[in-house]
Amino acid sequence: MKPYDLVIRGGTVVTAVDTMQADVAVRDGTIVAIGLDLPMARLEVDARMKLVMPGGVDTHSHIEQRSASGLMNADTFESATKAAAFGGTTTAISFAAQHVGMSLAKVVDEYHELAQRGAVIDYAFHMIIADPTDAVLTRELPLLVKAGHSSIKVFMTYDRLRLDDEKLLDVLMAARENSALVMAHAENHGMIAWMAKRLLDRGYSAPKYHAVAHPRASEAEAINRLISCAALVDQPIMIYHVSTAEGIRVIRQARGNGLKVYAETCPQYLFLTRHDLDKPGTSGAKWMCSPPTRESTDQEALWQALERGDLQTVSSDHAPYAYDKTGKLAAGSQPNFKQIANGLPGLEARLPLLFDAMVSKGRFNANQFVAWTSTEPAKLYGLHPRKGSIAIGADADIAIWDPRKKVTFSDRTVKDLTGYTPWAGRTVQGWPVTVIRRGDVIVDGGQINAKPGSGRFLPRPAGFAAQPLGRPSPEFDPATNFGAKLTGKNN
Amino acid sequence: MKPYDLVIRGGTVVTAVDTMQADVAVRDGTIVAIGLDLPMARLEVDARMKLVMPGGVDTHSHIEQRSASGLMNADTFESATKAAAFGGTTTAISFAAQHVGMSLAKVVDEYHELAQRGAVIDYAFHMIIADPTDAVLTRELPLLVKAGHSSIKVFMTYDRLRLDDEKLLDVLMAARENSALVMAHAENHGMIAWMAKRLLDRGYSAPKYHAVAHPRASEAEAINRLISCAALVDQPIMIYHVSTAEGIRVIRQARGNGLKVYAETCPQYLFLTRHDLDKPGTSGAKWMCSPPTRESTDQEALWQALERGDLQTVSSDHAPYAYDKTGKLAAGSQPNFKQIANGLPGLEARLPLLFDAMVSKGRFNANQFVAWTSTEPAKLYGLHPRKGSIAIGADADIAIWDPRKKVTFSDRTVKDLTGYTPWAGRTVQGWPVTVIRRGDVIVDGGQINAKPGSGRFLPRPAGFAAQPLGRPSPEFDPATNFGAKLTGKNN
Amino acid sequence: MKPYDLVIRGGTVVTAVDTMQADVAVRDGTIVAIGLDLPMARLEVDARMKLVMPGGVDTHSHIEQRSASGLMNADTFESATKAAAFGGTTTAISFAAQHVGMSLAKVVDEYHELAQRGAVIDYAFHMIIADPTDAVLTRELPLLVKAGHSSIKVFMTYDRLRLDDEKLLDVLMAARENSALVMAHAENHGMIAWMAKRLLDRGYSAPKYHAVAHPRASEAEAINRLISCAALVDQPIMIYHVSTAEGIRVIRQARGNGLKVYAETCPQYLFLTRHDLDKPGTSGAKWMCSPPTRESTDQEALWQALERGDLQTVSSDHAPYAYDKTGKLAAGSQPNFKQIANGLPGLEARLPLLFDAMVSKGRFNANQFVAWTSTEPAKLYGLHPRKGSIAIGADADIAIWDPRKKVTFSDRTVKDLTGYTPWAGRTVQGWPVTVIRRGDVIVDGGQINAKPGSGRFLPRPAGFAAQPLGRPSPEFDPATNFGAKLTGKNN
Amino acid sequence: MKPYDLVIRGGTVVTAVDTMQADVAVRDGTIVAIGLDLPMARLEVDARMKLVMPGGVDTHSHIEQRSASGLMNADTFESATKAAAFGGTTTAISFAAQHVGMSLAKVVDEYHELAQRGAVIDYAFHMIIADPTDAVLTRELPLLVKAGHSSIKVFMTYDRLRLDDEKLLDVLMAARENSALVMAHAENHGMIAWMAKRLLDRGYSAPKYHAVAHPRASEAEAINRLISCAALVDQPIMIYHVSTAEGIRVIRQARGNGLKVYAETCPQYLFLTRHDLDKPGTSGAKWMCSPPTRESTDQEALWQALERGDLQTVSSDHAPYAYDKTGKLAAGSQPNFKQIANGLPGLEARLPLLFDAMVSKGRFNANQFVAWTSTEPAKLYGLHPRKGSIAIGADADIAIWDPRKKVTFSDRTVKDLTGYTPWAGRTVQGWPVTVIRRGDVIVDGGQINAKPGSGRFLPRPAGFAAQPLGRPSPEFDPATNFGAKLTGKNN
Repeated sequence: MKPYDLVIRGGTVVTAVDTMQADVAVRDGTIVAIGLDLPMARLEVDARMKLVMPGGVDTHSHIEQRSASGLMNADTFESATKAAAFGGTTTAISFAAQHVGMSLAKVVDEYHELAQRGAVIDYAFHMIIADPTDAVLTRELPLLVKAGHSSIKVFMTYDRLRLDDEKLLDVLMAARENSALVMAHAENHGMIAWMAKRLLDRGYSAPKYHAVAHPRASEAEAINRLISCAALVDQPIMIYHVSTAEGIRVIRQARGNGLKVYAETCPQYLFLTRHDLDKPGTSGAKWMCSPPTRESTDQEALWQALERGDLQTVSSDHAPYAYDKTGKLAAGSQPNFKQIANGLPGLEARLPLLFDAMVSKGRFNANQFVAWTSTEPAKLYGLHPRKGSIAIGADADIAIWDPRKKVTFSDRTVKDLTGYTPWAGRTVQGWPVTVIRRGDVIVDGGQINAKPGSGRFLPRPAGFAAQPLGRPSPEFDPATNFGAKLTGKNN
Repeated sequence: MKPYDLVIRGGTVVTAVDTMQADVAVRDGTIVAIGLDLPMARLEVDARMKLVMPGGVDTHSHIEQRSASGLMNADTFESATKAAAFGGTTTAISFAAQHVGMSLAKVVDEYHELAQRGAVIDYAFHMIIADPTDAVLTRELPLLVKAGHSSIKVFMTYDRLRLDDEKLLDVLMAARENSALVMAHAENHGMIAWMAKRLLDRGYSAPKYHAVAHPRASEAEAINRLISCAALVDQPIMIYHVSTAEGIRVIRQARGNGLKVYAETCPQYLFLTRHDLDKPGTSGAKWMCSPPTRESTDQEALWQALERGDLQTVSSDHAPYAYDKTGKLAAGSQPNFKQIANGLPGLEARLPLLFDAMVSKGRFNANQFVAWTSTEPAKLYGLHPRKGSIAIGADADIAIWDPRKKVTFSDRTVKDLTGYTPWAGRTVQGWPVTVIRRGDVIVDGGQINAKPGSGRFLPRPAGFAAQPLGRPSPEFDPATNFGAKLTGKNN
Repeated sequence: MKPYDLVIRGGTVVTAVDTMQADVAVRDGTIVAIGLDLPMARLEVDARMKLVMPGGVDTHSHIEQRSASGLMNADTFESATKAAAFGGTTTAISFAAQHVGMSLAKVVDEYHELAQRGAVIDYAFHMIIADPTDAVLTRELPLLVKAGHSSIKVFMTYDRLRLDDEKLLDVLMAARENSALVMAHAENHGMIAWMAKRLLDRGYSAPKYHAVAHPRASEAEAINRLISCAALVDQPIMIYHVSTAEGIRVIRQARGNGLKVYAETCPQYLFLTRHDLDKPGTSGAKWMCSPPTRESTDQEALWQALERGDLQTVSSDHAPYAYDKTGKLAAGSQPNFKQIANGLPGLEARLPLLFDAMVSKGRFNANQFVAWTSTEPAKLYGLHPRKGSIAIGADADIAIWDPRKKVTFSDRTVKDLTGYTPWAGRTVQGWPVTVIRRGDVIVDGGQINAKPGSGRFLPRPAGFAAQPLGRPSPEFDPATNFGAKLTGKNN
Repeated sequence: MKPYDLVIRGGTVVTAVDTMQADVAVRDGTIVAIGLDLPMARLEVDARMKLVMPGGVDTHSHIEQRSASGLMNADTFESATKAAAFGGTTTAISFAAQHVGMSLAKVVDEYHELAQRGAVIDYAFHMIIADPTDAVLTRELPLLVKAGHSSIKVFMTYDRLRLDDEKLLDVLMAARENSALVMAHAENHGMIAWMAKRLLDRGYSAPKYHAVAHPRASEAEAINRLISCAALVDQPIMIYHVSTAEGIRVIRQARGNGLKVYAETCPQYLFLTRHDLDKPGTSGAKWMCSPPTRESTDQEALWQALERGDLQTVSSDHAPYAYDKTGKLAAGSQPNFKQIANGLPGLEARLPLLFDAMVSKGRFNANQFVAWTSTEPAKLYGLHPRKGSIAIGADADIAIWDPRKKVTFSDRTVKDLTGYTPWAGRTVQGWPVTVIRRGDVIVDGGQINAKPGSGRFLPRPAGFAAQPLGRPSPEFDPATNFGAKLTGKNN
């Protein structure tokens, strides 16, 4: 038997189901054995008193992305994926963001190029479709899904990105025909525009009014509409960054009706409230994300939804904008809240924040932590079994956590290029002290050792979430293509 | 004591609450006594063996209206209100329909002129707002509401009429500021457009595909969105022509949450199904209305909703289009379903159809019949106490019903100008044999005796339905105008 | 024409639907005309500036009743019905209370005798069945229902009164076969017994712990169970004295499912909370009723339920116990809360409390006041059209209200024999200054003029509420008597 | 390194999360390695083309149990656990069934003795409490829970077993104080008794009327009542053998409210309907279980509930009664349905039936099969990490499944002592061809090789499911022991 390249020895191995004292052996970048007293390897890592967990999978991150308004975010693939690695995340799905008029295939190519140049962890792309022309949906999309891009993001708000309901149905139907998953930013655009206009007309322009401008009802309404559209064509959907108890209620009801509805939330909605936006001058901008952070009762509703399975994953929605004229202050030094880019950095902080809240504080256990941050996202988005678990044959993407180590976030120690962190001053217990990507130790002792471009693209098969059990709308009969229940065609 | 002008003698008087053997006396067009053995009057009407009920109030009828596409409906105020009178209806609210670019005040003036010329029963106008400009909402609307036009209709579908959510909020807010009621045609435009396009692309063009093109979900979705918007600004709403069990469910839930949501249905949704559209050639067009007729299980859901108060009224949605090139076939003799005007005549048939189903067939009683077709609509739209009941001081608008008389509808006997009736061949028991408007007998012995223009305009006060008990969205604070809960204005 | 015996002149007549300036004429105890300028009568009552409303109908009152533990309540029929008359109530339904081992027919006879001797307003009886033997249900009940006793009350708690679920089904089925209505005191007995025992074991014995001993859940649970049983045999039910928001929720859901479920609440649940029990020593006993009064949020839920029709009536649940050894302190001067009789007087105060809250304070209107306190109860329990409205042919039971008169409740002015009032110190605006029973002025100028025994028994027909629209349990087939859907009888 | 005792080589290892090609190594009865190319062991098992899954955990089985009416079931621990092993199950929890008057500790001792003598797989006991005296709850229970019996079963129906609500609360509270889980048979006793009596009175006595006698509503009602009681004292509960869509709805609603409610179903409710009882003579008795099997729509509701997590496990409810005078026909050869013991054998068939439906038929995957039948039950009842997964350090309880093997159930090949199987004639694909218990191959080649008594007792710690997130009833304050929110104790 060929000797192992690496053995992680003496740790507590944690999967979404089991917690066990065991060594983990790696050969050729792959996990080949989990067991007691495994033979010595070329490289031994001491994991005694530590937790050996699958590397995090972050399925919602904006990296090196140009926004609809032309603004670049602060990170490159190199900086973003290095920050991710520091935080214990070894796989990220970022966006290939089409804007109106662009070829989707070309957009994907461009993001491929950026990622190949910089990424230090493995990655994939969701395709943002802002212009679902016939060409995009019938010619480009099938090829792109076959090439491993099996998920599509759409926006229901934002001026140059949002799809109206008819176009939304076009995308949902195209996704259905290609067995791709559709994710959505679900907020009611009209409500937000109307509230924002009234607020600004009356001089309410500080960042804290961003939270007022996005009514709670705008989320529940849009989620309900999205689910109605998806149910019409019997297409599974993932609802991004749920922030309100009312949104949860709509999702739970739909799932109870047997519809294939998935949903995520993000650390900001679990740990922050709208009161965090209430800072002097424009500095509240650093806490501006969309949807905005809400109330403490919403936090509780989100935790309960995670526990009972109505939410399946927690992603970062990493969207880094520097607090200067390249980012948050692009519109000048006294912008109103509509002129400030929405988004928070999160690739690094996501896992430590959750580990602290779930495991160190004892509300949930380490298996649930692994499930919601690694295994479930890997399964939902077609990355499993290669990613998302510690299992024989899986990529050896492993984060070794010291459950006793305490770290205090600060703007000075931020690893990405945002230049600040919304979590500054917050102390967490539990930290991924050693991070291994496909068998290589890339983070250890607070240092990263990974070549830009050493991350690999992860093609994802279609169809992983596309076997809906739901009840398609009775009018819609995919087999015969509409109207089968009426007599004949035109009689 | 001045002698009575008229006594209706020996009948069974029915109000929304009571059923009593009594004479009814009228003087100067007003009911002045209800009692036993009232003194003789100038004119005596024998009502023995008959029911003496308040004349019907039909609060949803399109009369002499030009559609967004320029098509005129078949009726004039004279023909429509005469048909109404034949069917026992003595008050109609019709529409003053603004199209994009028009002055709302001018539109109202024009419809006033048409009605003054032709109407034989009393009438009022709802204002359709398709173009809610600042001028319309802030300058014209307040004056028009003060002039007695205290209700506004909006469309969520139809190409040249529909409001997007932001404009919808503008209208709801303007209505709130003027204490006007807002009524809505609630269907999801995108779903309908998408379905219709797919159907037509595949050659499914017959009238019966109209029902397929309006998915059930499009109604429930739009109702939910409308309620969300109305709740945001704490404005009462009336949902027009509810057709599906799912729509009812959304309404019931909102009412259970304390929101001021009202709703109606129409006879076509209680008595027809989508299978009625399945006729040879294009003749199904005669049964095309929007939303389309649904399933028998929906009929049952609508009846139950009426009984438990989730629906408050049954209106006709009279929208008459001749089955020729002036109406249904305006686009040619082989139109596809999108080229055919939606709408059914209903001013005449509404009450006899309901009387037969409710009273003659014994499922409900005559008090409920009066409540849903006369008293409740009069109260909801600000016509009560002048209209809607048999009470001292009320206008003497009275229909005397023979509960034993059987009538079979046929195209030949139709009283309006549509030229056909969707109810042809249907026999009902119970008919309004004598109809009295402000003390004048205008229908008797199958003849009408009323001068065109003898109907009068009914100004309606604002605020009748505008004391909502609901819970406004917590973000929305009308007292302080937004954001009161955050500290200060801009920090 | 024979002259009128009485005309109430110049008032504002209020029915459940209309409000009108009109005179009301009475002959032979019956209303014979409502109109303007009616001819002079033998007796004229000036009602200018006053409201002329139907006398109240109180369908839930314990009069001269012996409790299961042998305790007599404080009132006689004379004292109770006089107090009712002072409060504007002209019809009361009281209980003929069977205890275990008694003949139901004999019980009814005894209460007949008591009422005939003392009542000054008209009355009827509900039969409390505590011992549903075969003899009671199959021999006595049919005759009693035919004799005009068409409603049955059952208890789900109280040691010597409560029926277990099997006996409850026996009663529901018997009621169904006789078209009688079933009313229920719905609380979970086990929860209450368990809580009370634990509280007393730990020394929590003051009256305020009565509220703790009746968990909120005990009401919602019992209501749900009652509805399940009633639905099984397809029998309409009335749920008495609903006190919690959770109870309302169960009722609303059942009604939404088409079940024939009715419900009432009482003034104590609309105006008091459990904090009213928190008084020195045992004096909180004066506020002890069962179920106990709850929270202010429950009050709001009850008002909303009334408004949307989930509750149909407000009764008093008059249950008077003196605060001495004949009543509340029968077990000694330091009783624990389980030893104190539950019940509040309410026949007098019910209407003034509601008028003040609904009409004077402007939350609802006078029509709704009439509906919930007179018309709806009369209709639900088979007293209409004789009682419950101002209509031609109805008994001339009329209360003339001065909407400006303010009265402060106090123990000194209490009209019944309880000796105290839970409303002492509370000032209401609006008072029934003149009360007329079948054309006789029995209350005027603060004095009563009515002979004991002048009230009459009101037989009530069966079947008034017995046409359920609900869906009987699929296993239960009344037509074929079970099991019709399986093949044959015993295969 | 000590050589392995056993390697299962070349199979596909399936856990609740992962599916991987790997060998599994065992030493001293424990799994010590999972990996590729593990070293040779003393004993090698060839698992190529096969699935290597954790042995089944059946947490609901009646073994060698005497019923309340004195009837013994057909199996001994030896026969039952052998049948279980043949079906791939390596852990069973059976009952120690107290009847009224018995000492619970003594009952547990007796069942210990029976199991020690016969069991061939590992086992534990749930304690049935039918007589919750003070002595049982305060003296015996704490010691028994500490001894590893951390779960209690109660009955809400059955004449000599059921607890009324007050006793139910006593048990729930005692369980709370000892951190034990409570499981319940939840059906409304009164409904069943009432229906059965009416059916038998009318001569409907065949087994098929058993299904009629247990109304659907009796399950939903009892579940709702149980949840209400458990919520009152904030105690987690497991609802046994859910059979109806309505039951599921109640459970889902409670879970959505944050209550710690767990639930299971059984194969009979997933695969049979009430029509299976419709057999000639009394032979339907072989399909009689309680609750009865229902409709095909219920089956679908149960599958959906499993998928979305509202049900967590599928157990057998093994309750074997021979079809002769020792069992089903104990009351004679022509018993009515109330005289026939309820129960089906299921320890053997449970897993093959589920594997076939879930995996072979492709509706779910093998991970879900493992989760619902082994991992989840082991976790819920405190058997994990020793049982329920293939993980390092776990007992080597492994079933090797041939996913291609087809087996047809027949009465002749039944392994337990029931003498028949309700699944006779049904063919399943997928069978556990080799079964390993703590490293010993006990089933292979259709033969069993295990000494009676070689199974071991599994003590289970308290508290595994006792950290409820729910909201205790506001009246109930465990910290201060009631009433903390009112002022002081007795004022």
